[in-house]
Amino acid sequence: MDTPNPVDSTQFLQQQLEAVIKLLERQELENSLVHKSTSSHHDLEEALVEKQHQVRLQERLSDLHSADIAFILESLPLDQRQVVWNAIKADHDGQVLLEVSDAVRETLISGMGDEELAIFASNLDTDEIADLAADIPKRAMLKILRSLNSQERSHLKTILSYEDDQVGALMDFGMIAIRDDLNLEAVIVYIRKLGKLPGHTDKLFVVDQHNVVKGVLPLQRLLTHSPAQQVAEAMVTDFVQFQIDEDTDVAARAFERYDLISAPVVDEQGQLQGRLCVDSIMDFIRESTDEDMLIQAGVGENEDLFSSVWKSAKNRWGWLLINVATAFASTRIIDVFQDTILQLVALASLMPIVAAMGGNTGNQTSMLIIRSLALGQINAVNVRRLIKKELSLALLNGLFIGIIIGLLSWVLYYNLALSIVIGSAMLINLMVAVIVGLIIPLGRNKLGKDPAVGTSIMLTAITDSMGFFIVLVLARLFLVH
Amino acid sequence: MDTPNPVDSTQFLQQQLEAVIKLLERQELENSLVHKSTSSHHDLEEALVEKQHQVRLQERLSDLHSADIAFILESLPLDQRQVVWNAIKADHDGQVLLEVSDAVRETLISGMGDEELAIFASNLDTDEIADLAADIPKRAMLKILRSLNSQERSHLKTILSYEDDQVGALMDFGMIAIRDDLNLEAVIVYIRKLGKLPGHTDKLFVVDQHNVVKGVLPLQRLLTHSPAQQVAEAMVTDFVQFQIDEDTDVAARAFERYDLISAPVVDEQGQLQGRLCVDSIMDFIRESTDEDMLIQAGVGENEDLFSSVWKSAKNRWGWLLINVATAFASTRIIDVFQDTILQLVALASLMPIVAAMGGNTGNQTSMLIIRSLALGQINAVNVRRLIKKELSLALLNGLFIGIIIGLLSWVLYYNLALSIVIGSAMLINLMVAVIVGLIIPLGRNKLGKDPAVGTSIMLTAITDSMGFFIVLVLARLFLVH
Repeated sequence: MDTPNPVDSTQFLQQQLEAVIKLLERQELENSLVHKSTSSHHDLEEALVEKQHQVRLQERLSDLHSADIAFILESLPLDQRQVVWNAIKADHDGQVLLEVSDAVRETLISGMGDEELAIFASNLDTDEIADLAADIPKRAMLKILRSLNSQERSHLKTILSYEDDQVGALMDFGMIAIRDDLNLEAVIVYIRKLGKLPGHTDKLFVVDQHNVVKGVLPLQRLLTHSPAQQVAEAMVTDFVQFQIDEDTDVAARAFERYDLISAPVVDEQGQLQGRLCVDSIMDFIRESTDEDMLIQAGVGENEDLFSSVWKSAKNRWGWLLINVATAFASTRIIDVFQDTILQLVALASLMPIVAAMGGNTGNQTSMLIIRSLALGQINAVNVRRLIKKELSLALLNGLFIGIIIGLLSWVLYYNLALSIVIGSAMLINLMVAVIVGLIIPLGRNKLGKDPAVGTSIMLTAITDSMGFFIVLVLARLFLVH
Repeated sequence: MDTPNPVDSTQFLQQQLEAVIKLLERQELENSLVHKSTSSHHDLEEALVEKQHQVRLQERLSDLHSADIAFILESLPLDQRQVVWNAIKADHDGQVLLEVSDAVRETLISGMGDEELAIFASNLDTDEIADLAADIPKRAMLKILRSLNSQERSHLKTILSYEDDQVGALMDFGMIAIRDDLNLEAVIVYIRKLGKLPGHTDKLFVVDQHNVVKGVLPLQRLLTHSPAQQVAEAMVTDFVQFQIDEDTDVAARAFERYDLISAPVVDEQGQLQGRLCVDSIMDFIRESTDEDMLIQAGVGENEDLFSSVWKSAKNRWGWLLINVATAFASTRIIDVFQDTILQLVALASLMPIVAAMGGNTGNQTSMLIIRSLALGQINAVNVRRLIKKELSLALLNGLFIGIIIGLLSWVLYYNLALSIVIGSAMLINLMVAVIVGLIIPLGRNKLGKDPAVGTSIMLTAITDSMGFFIVLVLARLFLVH
């Protein structure tokens, strides 16, 4: 695995990407020239040129880290991506497949045969095979299973038996477990015999004869403590470990809080089952925050930058259809009050403002609640205080924005009654918005559901309808006859 | 530092938090009883009870990790937070201050004297003092500076000379640098003499006589390689290092990509300046994604869950005012077309739908672009393909949503001309939305600005006005006279 030696890594990657794209464009040009030539050696010539291209791409990419190759593949449109992948896949083990995003992985795997996939998998650890399992066709998976030994098969089965958001699905088996009745000398000899430690080994896990985790031995203690010392004396007993069925969110917070690099994963009996490492946790955090952002904007997380138009469209229609439905529903109210609008057409341009501002303030509240829920900062005791604070805030905001909007509409229409109605409607709608912005995430959380999903769309639907409704009702009561 | 021994860490924290809150409530009750008693020993009694309370809180929290104490402080309302902090601050070094969020840190520091702060700082590393520097009053900072030695002062000055988003601001000085002409034996002796390595030391940095980084020596090689070997032979020369003025974003991506735990930070001459560790990077990622989410919802990142109502209000007004302004601006268009609406009042309830759907689709596009820009996946070569893809998608989406909305409005109003106008307006506005959703983030990025900031609000303003405008213009042209 090569990593970019002393260079700015982003610049380095951009240079690599541009070089690859230039190479691809030159190839496309050459290909079109070959196609134009009508010589009799046509097929042969074509095959030769093709081979040359592949070699050039292989040379270009041979020294790169698999994560960098993954980056380049992700940045290429589908057709070019396929060309590059076909040229280099024989040189690379499955690492590249692990590094690319789910959507891109699908495109890469779809063009590969069962045999090819099985060979790839033979270079991977069982936890890595588990990561790919969902995308590998059944027949290839059977081939892979047959190539594993019984311990590997049982590891694979263990990982696949946990949900994506559980620690068990994210762990690996690269832990070094040692018995507590050894001395450090023996441990050093053992490590020397191993020759190489798995990545992210900052500590060894100390277990008793029942494989129950008793402590951890930081690697550096092997260097700083006397070799004659017993493991049981040198180990740290005050350490963090995770239950195998724990939520990964919780584990991620603990990694951040306690600055962990690796930690043991245990079952209910405290027996060592696997290891959780900071690199998997970091990937998990990045993926889940990315996913949150995209889902909130109504883009499914498995849309890749160069997915086909058709696939992207299907991916986005669900969300757009829900939006059409809620937009229609909330504007039905306007129809009921048609005569009010006909009597005072200024309402048609003022009521969308009241509706929109409700959505904005409600979103501020719900976003703060969603974040605090994610941080675990809201509990039964402080939630009442929080609600009180947000409601006071809504009142203050409502007065402030209500007065501003009242003044603005007075400037526009010189109609005092209209200004008061619009200002009051704004105040009321902002109160409604904040209440809804509190209830939806807190309620979903209480029901055990993700507080972020769908909050924004439900909130907007309610604040829109209420905005229209409040303005039009107040107008009918106080402005028109 | 204690960490929760074999327990579910979130459950553990919630239990601690609830215990502290119960303690506080009992204290409040007792206090009110003392206040009611009118005995002559009033003051003395009060002081005694107060002291008892402090001791109870100290006992409760004495074994906790500073990150856990930070969590509890963040979860408490202002008054209770102050009570707990006053009780325990004497027992704790500045670590707790480092762990809390910026907004909470402000509330804690504001109640502390210069002397107290200087004592706190004396237990911190220079990179940690630098983290606090922005919140510490000038006079206390001068006291702290005087207590540092000249190397520490120069370290502090170095860190403070970099922007928050540069590697130099995030690095620490806990690196162990060794010369390449030693052998491993000598390195092991050196480490044994040190006794303890700084946290996150997974590798030593190898430098030549000019302090230029030549390689890294993973700790595990000290265990697996022969002690007689030279450092220069045993070291890894293919490693990642960062320029001190590099963007932290870039460094964070490299940490994720290459699964780093620590990496050397160098100046232009390649001389070792400091060290970047995965824990700082993880905090950075969490903070910047949290910040992005809150800023997009119009909540400043430095709003704490229990900020005073007044402070929160000021924090949110800026955003709300901008929204009022854009909402007013986009609805001005409606006024111009008052007579059109009066002739066909159904337009009043249909045009907000066209406007809203524009915002939704535009946001889908811009969010995908923003994410891809952050990942560095968009460059001069593939941007044209991307634009073409998004435009084709917009056309497809526009036709689909346009037909649906046309059908729905036909069902409602049995007016074929109206349905065609609304459907076409939808198609056009979705095209506009996607173009704007492409232009704003790509344009801001080209100008060197953060593509995410303000994109959503500008986009909505444009798609709203265009939505109203297109519907009303088409209506005037084809529906009314």
